[in-house]
Amino acid sequence: MSTNPTTIKAEAGTPFVEVTRDFDATPAQLFRVQTDPDLVAQWLGPRNLEMRVEEYDVRPGGRYRYIHRDPDGAEYAFRGVFHSVEPETRVIQTFEWEGAPGEVCLERATYEKTDTGVRLHTQSVFPSVEARDAAVQSGMEYGIRDAMDRLAELLAGDRS
Amino acid sequence: MSTNPTTIKAEAGTPFVEVTRDFDATPAQLFRVQTDPDLVAQWLGPRNLEMRVEEYDVRPGGRYRYIHRDPDGAEYAFRGVFHSVEPETRVIQTFEWEGAPGEVCLERATYEKTDTGVRLHTQSVFPSVEARDAAVQSGMEYGIRDAMDRLAELLAGDRS
Repeated sequence: MSTNPTTIKAEAGTPFVEVTRDFDATPAQLFRVQTDPDLVAQWLGPRNLEMRVEEYDVRPGGRYRYIHRDPDGAEYAFRGVFHSVEPETRVIQTFEWEGAPGEVCLERATYEKTDTGVRLHTQSVFPSVEARDAAVQSGMEYGIRDAMDRLAELLAGDRS
Repeated sequence: MSTNPTTIKAEAGTPFVEVTRDFDATPAQLFRVQTDPDLVAQWLGPRNLEMRVEEYDVRPGGRYRYIHRDPDGAEYAFRGVFHSVEPETRVIQTFEWEGAPGEVCLERATYEKTDTGVRLHTQSVFPSVEARDAAVQSGMEYGIRDAMDRLAELLAGDRS
């Protein structure tokens, strides 16, 4: 469906997941939709889930928590803290699904200006290869592709 | 020198470092020396470095920063945020040496009560195998052993 696909790399035997996606937007526009709680609620996660952002305090030491709700009413909560926030350049934060407490990931998002827009590169580091594999097998890739497509749509709307 | 050595595991080809050490102390005593800034300054790092704790705010979202100073006056600053703090059980935090900005580790310390005291297990996850290898090659192991021995000495003094 998308002519500008998301690249997802999850090399076997490593605890890493890397995602790359180009957007037809400025770094400032991308940073805004990635950090404004009202906008985050419109793209972060698969389309079939309701999203509720409880807290999204984007500053070093700031905390976030959001809840996904599926059509059957089951809820999945995620939380973390921001380690560093360099607007339009790099954001580093922790990430924990409350269903697996203590299995915390470190996530790094970097913004790279390109000729036509901005390239988002994210790296997730899991606490074990097994935890990474379990996340990939649970449908993580589908969720990421959906989220990246929704982010592109939101940015397209933002320009209009 | 120590009859109760520190075990350090850094498996080749992984971004992990795991440290295990038994202490003749209670989980409460260990948690105190690991979280009270005045006590942290007395053990966290090799003996030959001066230690200055600028901030050590042990709560979810709390920040920390400390500086090591070598005999020649060179300073090395480290910083991070606490993701979760479960007293006497588990602490998860980020860790960054300011000399390599953006190369952030995730650290998890867990406390396990044993017949004779408490076992501390820490896991550090680096953002790449290369970053982990560079840290190990820079003398990380020496610093860890020194710190764990100093921690044991501090706990021994704490009991007297």
